[in-house]
Amino acid sequence: MKNLPQAEILNIGDEILIGQIVNTNAVWIAQELNKRGVPVKRMTTVGDNKADMVKAIDQAIQHHDILIITGGLGPTKDDLTKEVLTEYFQTQLVFNHEVFELLDNFFKKRGRILNEANKTQCYVPKNCTILMNYWGTAPGMLFKKEGKIIVSLPGVPLEMKELMNKYVFPYIETHYPLPPILHRSYLTEGIPESELMMKLAEWENNLPTSVKLAYLPSAGQVTLRLSTLNENGNGRAIIQEQEEKLKSILEDEIIGYDGDTLEQVIQRIFIEKRLTLGTAESCTGGYIAHKITSVPGSSAYFMGSVVSYHNRVKQEVLKGKEDTLKTVGAVSKETVIQMAEHVRAILQTDYAIAVSGIAGPDGGTPEKPVGTVWVAWATPQGTLTKKYRFGNDRLTNIHRTYQASLGVLRKLVLNIPVRENFWE
Amino acid sequence: MKNLPQAEILNIGDEILIGQIVNTNAVWIAQELNKRGVPVKRMTTVGDNKADMVKAIDQAIQHHDILIITGGLGPTKDDLTKEVLTEYFQTQLVFNHEVFELLDNFFKKRGRILNEANKTQCYVPKNCTILMNYWGTAPGMLFKKEGKIIVSLPGVPLEMKELMNKYVFPYIETHYPLPPILHRSYLTEGIPESELMMKLAEWENNLPTSVKLAYLPSAGQVTLRLSTLNENGNGRAIIQEQEEKLKSILEDEIIGYDGDTLEQVIQRIFIEKRLTLGTAESCTGGYIAHKITSVPGSSAYFMGSVVSYHNRVKQEVLKGKEDTLKTVGAVSKETVIQMAEHVRAILQTDYAIAVSGIAGPDGGTPEKPVGTVWVAWATPQGTLTKKYRFGNDRLTNIHRTYQASLGVLRKLVLNIPVRENFWE
Repeated sequence: MKNLPQAEILNIGDEILIGQIVNTNAVWIAQELNKRGVPVKRMTTVGDNKADMVKAIDQAIQHHDILIITGGLGPTKDDLTKEVLTEYFQTQLVFNHEVFELLDNFFKKRGRILNEANKTQCYVPKNCTILMNYWGTAPGMLFKKEGKIIVSLPGVPLEMKELMNKYVFPYIETHYPLPPILHRSYLTEGIPESELMMKLAEWENNLPTSVKLAYLPSAGQVTLRLSTLNENGNGRAIIQEQEEKLKSILEDEIIGYDGDTLEQVIQRIFIEKRLTLGTAESCTGGYIAHKITSVPGSSAYFMGSVVSYHNRVKQEVLKGKEDTLKTVGAVSKETVIQMAEHVRAILQTDYAIAVSGIAGPDGGTPEKPVGTVWVAWATPQGTLTKKYRFGNDRLTNIHRTYQASLGVLRKLVLNIPVRENFWE
Repeated sequence: MKNLPQAEILNIGDEILIGQIVNTNAVWIAQELNKRGVPVKRMTTVGDNKADMVKAIDQAIQHHDILIITGGLGPTKDDLTKEVLTEYFQTQLVFNHEVFELLDNFFKKRGRILNEANKTQCYVPKNCTILMNYWGTAPGMLFKKEGKIIVSLPGVPLEMKELMNKYVFPYIETHYPLPPILHRSYLTEGIPESELMMKLAEWENNLPTSVKLAYLPSAGQVTLRLSTLNENGNGRAIIQEQEEKLKSILEDEIIGYDGDTLEQVIQRIFIEKRLTLGTAESCTGGYIAHKITSVPGSSAYFMGSVVSYHNRVKQEVLKGKEDTLKTVGAVSKETVIQMAEHVRAILQTDYAIAVSGIAGPDGGTPEKPVGTVWVAWATPQGTLTKKYRFGNDRLTNIHRTYQASLGVLRKLVLNIPVRENFWE
């Protein structure tokens, strides 16, 4: 692992530092470098400020082998990257005819005239390789120093990506003997991170040193990732061996692989089994249907949803009996059962999910505090219900309800025992 | 301006460096610090690696006054932040009873048992201020060193934000004499950024130097922000003067202020006018209802939605006539009119929105390419429709449909002329 070149990504721009834009350039570059076996060791963002830029470049070159810089190459006064690099590498700016012609053409094609500000973009540092930019106006630059590579690219995502693909990745791949890194990830469901960790502790401690395990928790779900270098072409076998051990420990808790989402998993199962689904949503307000229909092709199994946000809709559209609503309230076992069974009937689906709860921040009572959610699953075998007690944050409660309802649905469809006994 | 404390944000986590997650924590912290007059000078991300963390902390403290660290506080082996900070500040971990009780309670409430892994979270460095975390399991920490502040927070966005709001911002505000910066922001609707820039060019060029203007575009909407230092207490008057000029240029295109969202604006108008709303959604799959119900209190005006994802549901639940669907198809003017009018009738609302379209990536035809979306607004005065032609990306198309349908709805309810004449 010691001989892998290590990369740093340096993004330049005040707009990132004031939180105006999300730094998606760093995400893309990191993904692409990792795919090729180049670990990214640090990401840094500094503003359009000479001293801060020099400091960041200096530190990066000291510690890492490849430095990818984006931003600060525009024609305006606050774009300083070219000036800083020219000084840093003790060279000077020279007029480049090839860049000029490309730029002139670029403007002519668009019916615009090359102005003075843009002409400054034809001046480039003398001792670097120019990366011709066919997608915009600022050329990229590649410097070499003591065996290290420093690349400067425009911050416009499209231009940055094209230049990386055309020049930078091929350059890196030919200059470093990179062993490809293999990754395999496992989406788990319904098991908290700390519990997962305890279950996996022994296996984790006995992992071969060539295999790295990462826990990637996000919003109530944990993804596990195994990585290994594929040096002798046996990487896949090494991962496979550990995957089998992992699966024997977790069994039903691994629900997907390599970037799968819960709703993709549900879609795959339903389509494979030729089943259909509908939802009746109260507190989630359409969020479950939205997540399901975010996946292309979901219309093959998902019939639709009735979002009964107001009690009147529960009564009239879902035929929730008025006395049920009055006696036990909208957030109750009886109501979600009626909702689930009725929506299953009117949409003529195999399965239906119904949810009703108090998402918050208001509307809680001592008996039914904020975060109380009833879920019902109407299935060909009968209807189940479960009461959840989530927290106080509205959007988190909505998200958790979606996770819980689809997580249990998967188990029901696959005939996996659900932990709790909550059959009606 | 020289005495302003300078901040650095340090995010820890391999998942950021491999490009697996987008660093939204840095964006939020940067926005909030800037609002309070604290410039962010650098953002750094390093992995779950001791040496890299120490190097980054060291450099940050050398150059900046406030260091906000997120991530690496979980209970698993690769969470190293607490260990690194304990060594860095040459202190030791001690058991904290207050943290234990909070954690024990947190687990009991959720019907879970505090396991050994979680118990390690009760050990905290001796010489720091503990920031009690009521929203999760890992407490935050605040260290002081040579007049500088080092804060360590969990990487879970919700917990990070709550801890920043409850402890960190108040601490910063009382420890630094920050010249209050006044911000006022304006949410615009239905006008592209380039058009907005042209409309505002003259006004922008004549802005006093004490007032800064920022364009903050995001997913099809542009927010404008005016900022000024409130040094002599006249900041509000300065902003007010420019706001009036801005409003006279943009008139109906400014729909909200200071963080308002489109759905908050709609809610305010509907509740004020005591009107009700329902939706019938096909291609958006419940997204419009979800956005509307993300706002607390939306049940006061939003009755519900029928998500008719499959044509069968359009026919049966929405009474879309079978021959209409067969003759002109689900994505047609006739169908959305029927959907809107029927959902308005069954939900008994004043207004109803219906959408049907081809979100993509598949399902397009030469006559109805991907991105074709019909929207109908059923109102007390009649029903309007409009055909949109969005792009090729599924989620973007869904989002644009929500924006367009609520943007036009607002104009209809407020009797603002809509640009196009699309009355039926």
